[in-house]
Amino acid sequence: MGSDLKGNAVIGQSGGPTHVINQSLVGCVEVLKESANVEKILGAHHAVRGIIEEDFIELQDLPQDRLDRIAETPSAALGSSRDKPDDAYCEKIFKVFEKHNVRFFFYAGGNDSSDTCRIVNEKAKSAGYELHAFHIPKTIDNDLVCNDHTPGFGSAARFVAQAFMGDNLDNRALPGIKINVVMGRHAGWLTAASILGRSGEDDGPHLVYVPEVAFDSVKFCQDVDKVYSKHGRCLIAVSEGIHDADGNPMAAKLAEQQGHHVEKDAHGNVQLSGSGALGDFLAQEIKNYLGKKTRVRADTFGYLQRCMVGTASPVDQLEAREAGREAARQALAGDFDGSIAIQRVSDNPYRVEYKRIELSDVAAKTRTLPLDFINTENNNILDSFKDYLGPIVGDLPPVEFLRAQ
Amino acid sequence: MGSDLKGNAVIGQSGGPTHVINQSLVGCVEVLKESANVEKILGAHHAVRGIIEEDFIELQDLPQDRLDRIAETPSAALGSSRDKPDDAYCEKIFKVFEKHNVRFFFYAGGNDSSDTCRIVNEKAKSAGYELHAFHIPKTIDNDLVCNDHTPGFGSAARFVAQAFMGDNLDNRALPGIKINVVMGRHAGWLTAASILGRSGEDDGPHLVYVPEVAFDSVKFCQDVDKVYSKHGRCLIAVSEGIHDADGNPMAAKLAEQQGHHVEKDAHGNVQLSGSGALGDFLAQEIKNYLGKKTRVRADTFGYLQRCMVGTASPVDQLEAREAGREAARQALAGDFDGSIAIQRVSDNPYRVEYKRIELSDVAAKTRTLPLDFINTENNNILDSFKDYLGPIVGDLPPVEFLRAQ
Repeated sequence: MGSDLKGNAVIGQSGGPTHVINQSLVGCVEVLKESANVEKILGAHHAVRGIIEEDFIELQDLPQDRLDRIAETPSAALGSSRDKPDDAYCEKIFKVFEKHNVRFFFYAGGNDSSDTCRIVNEKAKSAGYELHAFHIPKTIDNDLVCNDHTPGFGSAARFVAQAFMGDNLDNRALPGIKINVVMGRHAGWLTAASILGRSGEDDGPHLVYVPEVAFDSVKFCQDVDKVYSKHGRCLIAVSEGIHDADGNPMAAKLAEQQGHHVEKDAHGNVQLSGSGALGDFLAQEIKNYLGKKTRVRADTFGYLQRCMVGTASPVDQLEAREAGREAARQALAGDFDGSIAIQRVSDNPYRVEYKRIELSDVAAKTRTLPLDFINTENNNILDSFKDYLGPIVGDLPPVEFLRAQ
Repeated sequence: MGSDLKGNAVIGQSGGPTHVINQSLVGCVEVLKESANVEKILGAHHAVRGIIEEDFIELQDLPQDRLDRIAETPSAALGSSRDKPDDAYCEKIFKVFEKHNVRFFFYAGGNDSSDTCRIVNEKAKSAGYELHAFHIPKTIDNDLVCNDHTPGFGSAARFVAQAFMGDNLDNRALPGIKINVVMGRHAGWLTAASILGRSGEDDGPHLVYVPEVAFDSVKFCQDVDKVYSKHGRCLIAVSEGIHDADGNPMAAKLAEQQGHHVEKDAHGNVQLSGSGALGDFLAQEIKNYLGKKTRVRADTFGYLQRCMVGTASPVDQLEAREAGREAARQALAGDFDGSIAIQRVSDNPYRVEYKRIELSDVAAKTRTLPLDFINTENNNILDSFKDYLGPIVGDLPPVEFLRAQ
């Protein structure tokens, strides 16, 4: 296979940064650099916004050692954006591509980003302009369809697993009730990762609440009471996206109750992260239920989950790099467009493959946590989830503690 | 030197757990195991409470490989307690020691723990009972006098430094105003650690607020406005212990305003950690000042700072181990009581020594961040602090990013 298409390439990084989105950037650049058909490699500064403003960072001459250091660095080196391009915006993108003879377009992001690729490529097609547009998957939420998992998730899951291992030991040393709020708007994948380091019968988290099932704060207090009576302590993982039976996010209801302005992004999503309000509210509910002298604490893991330096999953790093490389290979080989999906071939030994799928297969769809992983009481994650998650996160540091005999 | 004193040993771990308090436990046990004068090594389950309840875990027969795994594990393997023993409590402790022929007592903790050692040893002395009681320093707050730094601080500081490095990159990718609340009731050491990974002129944190100086929320908003106008973004480190000019902690004032019960521990300290209220309040103040559409987020690092698995400082681990060993050596050599202080001998190469100091030198005193490290505007930490902090935290992972040309 091969293609005669020649011209410049544009690469962008969209949405919330992750620990490994720079691996995908570098993987893509590495392959493009080797091709005689690619002249300039233009990094879009702050994603689609950088494209329409023709604000590019040239990447074709970066030496390999600098690329390697960029790849190891969390967050989006090119800058990101939360803009959601509509039809007119995509038209502008296409016009810039025409002007700069851009023939290869790579966009790393979630399902909205694949839709941007698709629309821009349709504009190109109807204008008779040959463009090869590829989406590179990226989201700590792990919610892209057709993927076994997505680059960024493994590292965020590693953070959550290590944080819960440590907090479980902390909660053993000074027993009490502890709530940890984990990122995840519609999907509970990352919250479920809290159980990965659980080994003993009395290890926490003892309760896990994900947005796949409705949340009821009375039932929640009863659950906590039961665990606390049994173990004298209770460690709880709560997704920021938990909502009532009508689908209203608890976090948004709270902000409104407190008379705060409820922020919405370009996608119409209300702000969930960057506030401790949900955790504090749940802590107060427990105190009201169990008595105000009960020791209840709440932490909200926040943005550290996606970008804290030094906490990446090695597997996630490798896979993100390879996803970027594969997108570049496919685009150069002659495919017009597509998204690179990571699919698991075998569990033991763990092996994945990178497949081209249609952009429309990924766009605007959300893959939630299968209900099979949730217990019948809807307040915990089953250990079978570890078989899925373990290889993506990699080995966790061992821990050892003492017990009274 | 040497001592004929023979009998059993008791070890306890007090107060908030740290990443390396088990290193000190294991260091102490290792040395005691080798002594013919020590029969049983009794771990006090949940600190002083375990002593008065005679709830002990025998440690003398633990194999070295298990000890090594325990040492590497964060949090207090014996369990901890927030009890602050008064005179009557210390009398009970002494009675248990008499009953069990305990002749060596080691207590790892903050300045209150050294006071417990002191009082128990005075009881012993007045009863004519020979007891060797040693305090092993431990606190992420780094606030013990006579110490260059304390075991636990280096690892917590490493967490804070890595978190800010990542969050600075995150904030570059998606610019906005971001507040991170860091632990530290009276001392700003840990909050100051936020600057360690700062290298470029526009790297965050751009503003740092510590409890050594009074906090004014109007001045705070003006500071943020200035940075935001200049850089289009602003990353802020705030100590949980910030207080107004009269010394009232902001966090406690807030809880009262919201009609919440303000929790106090046995030491009379109000609850600061385990809530996102302070960060959320400051975010709201900025929105009120700059307009509600400004993107402002707040994260509170919480308990992860002290115990997250996999984030220890290697130097901190070694030093905590050695502090435990040294306490055991001194107690066996014949010293009646004391505290082990880590003192810096040289910066380059970095070298420390472990010295015995008097228990009364450490007890009930707080060492705050010297004002020399704070800028004249009281809203930042000077780079000279890095020379002090760097060797304690160890090398940080390198980061690399791109800039528009």
